[in-house]
Amino acid sequence: MTSSAMRDLMAITERPEVISLAGGLPDTSTFPTASFAALMHELANTHLAKALQYGPTEGLAIARAAASKVMADENAIVDPDDVLITTGGQQGLDLICKALIDPGDVIIAEGPTYPGAISAFTSYEARVEHVPVDEDGLDPVLLRERLAELAKSGARPKFIYLIPNFQNPAGVTLSLERRHEILAIARENELLIVEDNPYGLLRYEGEALPTMLELDGGDSVAYIGTFSKILSPGIRVGWVTAPRPVLEKLNLGKQAADLCASSLTQHFVAEYISGAEWPTYVAELSEIYRRRRDVMLESLALELPRSAGWNAPEGGLFLWVTLPDYIDTTDLLARALRENVAFVPGRAAWVDGSGSSSMRLNFSGADEAGIREGIRRIGIVVNEQVELFETLTGKRSPAIGKRPATPDDKQGVTDDAGGEVVEFRKPRSAGA
Amino acid sequence: MTSSAMRDLMAITERPEVISLAGGLPDTSTFPTASFAALMHELANTHLAKALQYGPTEGLAIARAAASKVMADENAIVDPDDVLITTGGQQGLDLICKALIDPGDVIIAEGPTYPGAISAFTSYEARVEHVPVDEDGLDPVLLRERLAELAKSGARPKFIYLIPNFQNPAGVTLSLERRHEILAIARENELLIVEDNPYGLLRYEGEALPTMLELDGGDSVAYIGTFSKILSPGIRVGWVTAPRPVLEKLNLGKQAADLCASSLTQHFVAEYISGAEWPTYVAELSEIYRRRRDVMLESLALELPRSAGWNAPEGGLFLWVTLPDYIDTTDLLARALRENVAFVPGRAAWVDGSGSSSMRLNFSGADEAGIREGIRRIGIVVNEQVELFETLTGKRSPAIGKRPATPDDKQGVTDDAGGEVVEFRKPRSAGA
Repeated sequence: MTSSAMRDLMAITERPEVISLAGGLPDTSTFPTASFAALMHELANTHLAKALQYGPTEGLAIARAAASKVMADENAIVDPDDVLITTGGQQGLDLICKALIDPGDVIIAEGPTYPGAISAFTSYEARVEHVPVDEDGLDPVLLRERLAELAKSGARPKFIYLIPNFQNPAGVTLSLERRHEILAIARENELLIVEDNPYGLLRYEGEALPTMLELDGGDSVAYIGTFSKILSPGIRVGWVTAPRPVLEKLNLGKQAADLCASSLTQHFVAEYISGAEWPTYVAELSEIYRRRRDVMLESLALELPRSAGWNAPEGGLFLWVTLPDYIDTTDLLARALRENVAFVPGRAAWVDGSGSSSMRLNFSGADEAGIREGIRRIGIVVNEQVELFETLTGKRSPAIGKRPATPDDKQGVTDDAGGEVVEFRKPRSAGA
Repeated sequence: MTSSAMRDLMAITERPEVISLAGGLPDTSTFPTASFAALMHELANTHLAKALQYGPTEGLAIARAAASKVMADENAIVDPDDVLITTGGQQGLDLICKALIDPGDVIIAEGPTYPGAISAFTSYEARVEHVPVDEDGLDPVLLRERLAELAKSGARPKFIYLIPNFQNPAGVTLSLERRHEILAIARENELLIVEDNPYGLLRYEGEALPTMLELDGGDSVAYIGTFSKILSPGIRVGWVTAPRPVLEKLNLGKQAADLCASSLTQHFVAEYISGAEWPTYVAELSEIYRRRRDVMLESLALELPRSAGWNAPEGGLFLWVTLPDYIDTTDLLARALRENVAFVPGRAAWVDGSGSSSMRLNFSGADEAGIREGIRRIGIVVNEQVELFETLTGKRSPAIGKRPATPDDKQGVTDDAGGEVVEFRKPRSAGA
C-alpha cells in the first residue's frame, strides 16, 4: 500500500455517498459554534496583531503552557520550556526523523503501526522493524529477541516508536508492566523511546495508565502530543517534549521546515485550554465515541461471519478486525468501495506486506447510524468472500475469530460450528 | 552565522526595548479587527466542522482557488489543481528539497540569498553555490560561468533558487531581459528554476514584471507563493505550483511531513480572498511600506557615514547596506544590540562567510518613528567603528558608498572628501 494509493483511497472516501470508517477523523461537528465564535471575537479584540504575526520557532509561550497543562491532565509534568510546538503530531514524527535518521537507520515500531508513521519513517529512508503487539501492546520478549538479532547483524536502532494508549491501528493498550519492561530494555540498550500519545485522554473505560515519559527511565523518552483529537485536527497544533539535546535539534529542524507553527491557531488553543470548558468537551467527546465503539462492536457481532475476529479498545478511535487469511483486505477494499464503505487495509500498517487479512476500523468519524450501515456493508462483502471460499473448497472457514465479550455477554459467538474453540477476551474493565 | 545563533538573535529582538530591523515581519497591526471578527463569525456559522477537520494533503479546493486568484493578480495563470497548499512558503522550499535533494547535491542560489533558504538547503545537506546579484538581480553571465565550472567538475545542480522581485535580502529586482536569459540558460542545461515570490504584489514604484513561470520556458519553473506578506504570516499558508511529476513528489512529502495544512487558516484565507477587500488592503500596506522605505532611505543618508552604501528597492521588505570592509557586521550586531537595535548581518545570507561587511535592513516591521530611531542607533555604532579605524590608521575610510538618489536629489552625498568618485544609481522609476 503506497502513500499515493492511500491518498487515492482517501479521495474516494470524500464522496458523500461513501461511509468512511477509514480515516482517523474526530467528530468536529460537536465543537460548539458559540464557543468558537466567542474565542475568535475575543482574539480579534485582544491579540489580533500577534495572532497574525510570525511567532518563535519553539512556539508561543501561551501554547507551550497549554500543552503542558494538557499533559498534566495525564499526570505528566513537563516544563513549558521543554515543549516544542509542531504542525500537528505528524510533524513531531517528521522532525524526530529529520534530526536522528540517516538512510538505512533502523527504527523499531509496533506491528501493526500507524500508517502515517510509516510514511514519515520511509520518507527518511529508515528501515522499519516491526515487533508484534498482542492485547497488551508490544511484546517485550519479542522486542528483546529482535534487538539481539539486530545487534548480531551490527544494526543499532535509532529509536523505538510506540503508541502506548489505544494504539493506532490495533486499538490495544500497553500494560503498565510492559511499560516498565520496555523502559528497562531501552535503558539497557541506550535507546530513545518515541512515545506518541494522541488519544490518551479519550478513555472510555478502565483506569488511565501513566505515560512512559513519567515512569522511571522516562528521561530517554521523546513524547509527541497533539490537540487534534481533543480539540481539532484542522488547527494543526501538536507538540514534542524530548531530552534537551534532541529538542534543540528538533527546533533547528522546525525552523528549516516551516519557521514556526501558526500563531493564529496557537492563540486559539491557548484561549481554549485556559478556559474551564475543555475537560467537559473531552468528556462529551469520550461519551460519544464510547457509544459509537459499542455500536460498532454490536454491529460487527451481528454482521461479520464467525471466522472474523476483533478487539474492544478501551479508548481511542480504532479497532482492528482480522479476517480468514484467504481474504486480502486490499482487494476487499475495492469491493467495499463499490458498496460505498471504506476502511484501511491492514497492509498499510506494516512495511513488509503483513496484515493482508486485517483492517483498521474507525469509530469516531461516522455517527451511530453510519456505523451500523457501514458495518452492514462490510459484512456483505466479507460474507461474499467467505461463501465463495466455502463453495469453492467445500469446507467451512478454518478458524473462529477471537472476539471480545459484549458487555452483557449475550451476543458472544456461540460455537455452532461444533468442536472449534471460541476464544474470548474480556475487556479489562466492564465499562459503563 | 548558524541557525541557532540567528535564533538567539531573534530572541533578543523580542525584548520590547529593542527596535528590530532584523526580521521580515509585515505590519499585522494594520489588519482590520472588524474584518477578522466578521470572517471568523461567518466561518463559525457556515463551515466550522470542516474548518476544524483534517483536509486533503494538497489543500482545500477553496484555498487552492484563492492561491490561483492571487497569482492571476500578477498575471500568472495557474489551474488550482496544480497548486499544493503548504505551511507557509518556507515549507515549499523544504518539500522541494525533500523531493529533489540528496546529500551533496548542488543548488544554485543568489548571493546573497534568503537566510531561511540556506537553513532549508543545508538541512538536506545540499551544497549551495552562490552566483552574485547586482542592481538587476542575478547576473546571467556569472551564472553561465558557474554552470560551466560545475559541469567541468562533474556537478549538475538540482535547481536554481531565485527571488526575482525585491529580493530577500538584497532588495534588487531581476530585470525582464535577465528573466528571459536565465530561463534560456535553464532550458539549455535542463535545470529546474525555483521561483520564490513572496513580495511580488508589494511594489511601491515602477511597472510590475512578469513572473518567470509565465514566460517562455516557464514550464520548468516551480513557483512558491505565500499569503504571509499580503495577509498574515501567522496563518502559515503558502503554496507551490510545479511541473506535475515534481508536484506529485511534493504531495507525498507533504503527507509525510504534516499530513495537511490547517483547514481553519485555509478557510480564513479563502473567505478573505473571495471578498472584495483584499486588493485595497494590499494597496494600503504598500503605501505604508513605501513611506517606511522612504523614511529609512532618508535616515540612512542622514545617519550613516559617507563610506556606507545601500540601495532603494522598488518594493518588498528589505534593503541592503554595505559598510567599509574593515567592519564586520556580525561583531557590529553585538554593539547594536547594546544600543537596542537589531539587523541581520550579511553573513547569514551566504554559506561561505561572504557578506561580512553588509547588513539586511527591514522597513516593514517598525513604524516610521522606530525606523528613524533605529537607523540613528545603527548610525552611532557604525560611526564609532569608522572613527576608530580612522583614528588608528590616520586615514579616511577608503571608499565612498554607492547610494540611490533621493527622490528630489537634495540629500545625495556630496563629495566633501575631495577627489573620490560618488556613484549614484537612480531608481528605475521616480516613484510617488
